Amino acid sequence: MNFTCEKTSLQEAISTAQKAVTGKSTMNILEGILLIAKDNELTIIGSDIDLSIETKAKVNVIEAGSVVLDSKLFGEIIRKMPNSEVIVKTLENNSVEIICEKSNAILKYMNPDEFPNIPNIDETILFGISQRLLKNMIRSTIFATAQDEIRPILTGVKFEVSNKKLNLVALDGLRLALRNEEVDNNISINAVIPGKTLSEVSKILEDTDENVNITFTQNHILFNLGETKIISRLLEGEFINYNSIIPDEYNLKVVVKRNELFDCIERASLMAKEGNTNLVKLSIKDDLLIITSDSQLGKAREELNVIMQGEPLKIAFNAKFLIDVLKIMDEEEIVLELTSSVSPCVVKNKDKNNCTYLVLPVRFVGN
Amino acid sequence: MNFTCEKTSLQEAISTAQKAVTGKSTMNILEGILLIAKDNELTIIGSDIDLSIETKAKVNVIEAGSVVLDSKLFGEIIRKMPNSEVIVKTLENNSVEIICEKSNAILKYMNPDEFPNIPNIDETILFGISQRLLKNMIRSTIFATAQDEIRPILTGVKFEVSNKKLNLVALDGLRLALRNEEVDNNISINAVIPGKTLSEVSKILEDTDENVNITFTQNHILFNLGETKIISRLLEGEFINYNSIIPDEYNLKVVVKRNELFDCIERASLMAKEGNTNLVKLSIKDDLLIITSDSQLGKAREELNVIMQGEPLKIAFNAKFLIDVLKIMDEEEIVLELTSSVSPCVVKNKDKNNCTYLVLPVRFVGN
Repeated sequence: MNFTCEKTSLQEAISTAQKAVTGKSTMNILEGILLIAKDNELTIIGSDIDLSIETKAKVNVIEAGSVVLDSKLFGEIIRKMPNSEVIVKTLENNSVEIICEKSNAILKYMNPDEFPNIPNIDETILFGISQRLLKNMIRSTIFATAQDEIRPILTGVKFEVSNKKLNLVALDGLRLALRNEEVDNNISINAVIPGKTLSEVSKILEDTDENVNITFTQNHILFNLGETKIISRLLEGEFINYNSIIPDEYNLKVVVKRNELFDCIERASLMAKEGNTNLVKLSIKDDLLIITSDSQLGKAREELNVIMQGEPLKIAFNAKFLIDVLKIMDEEEIVLELTSSVSPCVVKNKDKNNCTYLVLPVRFVGN
Repeated sequence: MNFTCEKTSLQEAISTAQKAVTGKSTMNILEGILLIAKDNELTIIGSDIDLSIETKAKVNVIEAGSVVLDSKLFGEIIRKMPNSEVIVKTLENNSVEIICEKSNAILKYMNPDEFPNIPNIDETILFGISQRLLKNMIRSTIFATAQDEIRPILTGVKFEVSNKKLNLVALDGLRLALRNEEVDNNISINAVIPGKTLSEVSKILEDTDENVNITFTQNHILFNLGETKIISRLLEGEFINYNSIIPDEYNLKVVVKRNELFDCIERASLMAKEGNTNLVKLSIKDDLLIITSDSQLGKAREELNVIMQGEPLKIAFNAKFLIDVLKIMDEEEIVLELTSSVSPCVVKNKDKNNCTYLVLPVRFVGN
């Protein structure tokens, strides 16, 4: 193998492919990235078997070939090279030489035959969506995925297309996040994508109206961004029937300014951090929302003007779950729909009907 | 106690005094900051006994008094309050109430009588220096202080004024940093300031030509910045006679561009990190500086044009020690003075004669 290229484009490609390398594998080969130089194009692939990222860089191929290089070390070497032309070529003794101006590095390569095969996916059934929109939908739901592996299916985000509607749903037993958009597509999709995959995908997606094309197979998903392809295993198993969890009636509706509610709950939670309960109490009455917290550290009381329809109510939450939701919503005014102090609270945008959050309350004794 | 003030100025004062609170103490009272409201002025003091920081904020005192509040919690509460007027007043039951618009927090206070006394320092013998210059001198030396407590005196920086010259010196047995400036002052000072103190002082010093006034007593140092005073214990014991360590002769003088040398050593050190040796080898001959490193990870070779006077030389260093020095120097061209492969290397600015760095080489076998 022997190719030359601009340092910056090589650095960028390594940084993309690297996102699939976890560095936690016991298999040495998975700490490497696969480089394939062919037809004046360099393909770089990183993989942790579950997730693979393949990207391309324009290079000048002098001699075709392929090697696996330690992802971290090769990335660091290229990053620290001068902004100039880089030569990468194999030597004898399973070594690769990297030359840039008067800098020279030689490192061992691993056998490309040992690198895991990337699933071959037939890209005939495609679902296109703007990169910006998908990025936003991931951000709006991924925080609600389960962080432990007790029920592995809940570490993923359900990706569902039906009736010209795309739903992304995550839930962890204490809260649920649903983000939906209308789509101009009649296909039907039903898959659960690992949270880790979506987290890396969202780092690669750009704030552009350009589409990312998505293909599903029985067990895999492929995100095609042109130069870069991300292939991930899907999670197996049945996702919870989330529609049955979301209440469609309520006794009290509260309209409130999102950032004001966020600030008040953040302040009240300062006094609630003792013993990890993080309990904040909400009392809604006479168009006033009073938030209180109380621990050995001290007490907090916050007052907020709201518009309410329905019966007064007292209810308590783990502050973190409300903060997580309020932080990622983007409308100025939001709506809380409440039924009783032991029923879930539904949070929605006031105008756009594109998300539904559900947070379970915490039962408490006393006022 | 009862006072009102602007949130931002209170927040700023807390943040300054807090820098003395380590949060590592077993004494509860040292996790607090002392607030003294008197004569329309609020004095806030943080202390870990060795180091105390006292600062003032303009407030409207309605009722004089003093309390000790948990530094972290009180700081967080004020930081998250709206940008508006804050009321802080004591209630019954050893509590303080903090009110800002519709936000209200109540927390317990600790007994101000239990707060450690700040040494009373007679500010008659003063040494003034511009804040910007002192900040720069601290940055230029503090990295070379010892990080372990084997010889406690080496965890400090020697502060020495004699013959109208101020020297700051730090050394840890493997390298030495000396930064000097001429001063218009005939006094003689000889003290060793704890590294931790200087690290906090340098965060508080601003990039301004305004002076900080420094007073020394037998055991303490006081930095007076006007609103803020920093008082620290000095380190006891005899500092090493550093002048005897710095060689005044050399066999080889090398003039080199600082950022080029820095980049080359950074790149070469990528291959040197295995087994923590971090060994880079320098070979200087025919106005060429060749830097190499070699480990199981791979090999690096860097070439640099230099101007040399004297005999060719091969010498090896722990890359980190060279990087630490090159990172904080600020002249474009620097000078290396070398004697042999087992003698210390002296690094200086090419033009300004205001610093001397000394790095011990590493002995190595082979080429």
